[in-house]
Amino acid sequence: MNELQERIIAEGRVLPGDIIKVDGFMNHRVDTALMRSIARDIKAHFEGREITKVMTVEASGIPLATITADEFGVPLLFAKKAKSDNIEGGLVKSEIFSYTYKKKVTLIVSAEWISPDDKILIVDDFMANGEAMRGLVEIVDQVGAELVGVAIAIEKGFQGGGDRLRARGIDVYSLAIVEHAEPGNIVFRE
Amino acid sequence: MNELQERIIAEGRVLPGDIIKVDGFMNHRVDTALMRSIARDIKAHFEGREITKVMTVEASGIPLATITADEFGVPLLFAKKAKSDNIEGGLVKSEIFSYTYKKKVTLIVSAEWISPDDKILIVDDFMANGEAMRGLVEIVDQVGAELVGVAIAIEKGFQGGGDRLRARGIDVYSLAIVEHAEPGNIVFRE
Repeated sequence: MNELQERIIAEGRVLPGDIIKVDGFMNHRVDTALMRSIARDIKAHFEGREITKVMTVEASGIPLATITADEFGVPLLFAKKAKSDNIEGGLVKSEIFSYTYKKKVTLIVSAEWISPDDKILIVDDFMANGEAMRGLVEIVDQVGAELVGVAIAIEKGFQGGGDRLRARGIDVYSLAIVEHAEPGNIVFRE
Repeated sequence: MNELQERIIAEGRVLPGDIIKVDGFMNHRVDTALMRSIARDIKAHFEGREITKVMTVEASGIPLATITADEFGVPLLFAKKAKSDNIEGGLVKSEIFSYTYKKKVTLIVSAEWISPDDKILIVDDFMANGEAMRGLVEIVDQVGAELVGVAIAIEKGFQGGGDRLRARGIDVYSLAIVEHAEPGNIVFRE
């Protein structure tokens, strides 16, 4: 069992709706030392692959993606979820369904900051149905950049998002794949 | 002129509505090395002060706040802007007016992750009218935690938010205070 899995067992709680609550160290109060440890694992997994940019989507994936980008020594690019005043000009978009907010959400990246020469590592804190990751992969494909892989801290294996991406030949690396979650009993994929 | 100010002059653009567009290195594509440099400046400014937590608000402040928390070796706590399914129980709230989205927004922190013993450094990428910072300060005050200070990368000095906080005796440290911004002419406060 790795450090993240130990923390999930020790501090995570399972709430109704298959929610695994880890907001004490992952996505509200964030243990930056744990993020560093996860980022190093991600770097080891993708050792030898050229990466020019780490990409995520706002908001809760940003801490891990920032530390991962810092670890690789490359810029971070985070997709936005709605058009704010501060993004002008050419946009690359992908529409997804957000299960968190129960509505369609458009992921947006400025075309200025991603190019066909980019070799992209997508990073996020959580993957369940994989809609957000599917959207980011679509953006990388639209631009014609190279997708090096997808790195996730906690994958809800029982919701299938990660396996759908793997079935497409994408290198999906998750530090903790939860196969079963009920109060007091969290089981990881071997 | 510090490194951030040089980057603003070299790569920033002024758009209508007093928008200073720095999304190539600050708040869309993020230069993590620059964030590290800013975080080190922040740490030097608050040298000798005890800090137990770095606090920010989603989303664009998270990269700098993450690197700053990493630099101080403390956890990051980011306030959320709307209630999602993953936050239960006691919440500390503050209502602000978002000039970006032109509507009222409630900032939310789980009471579980902030305590009267905390010594909080608030960090954000931008401050204009200072509404978001006022909201975070209000949350710190509600909890009865100690506010060590506020650290900002880019403060729009001409919009007064920073000076309003300084007038209340708060230590506001900004790396670049923009006093005047028009295309081709960005002037910093001495």
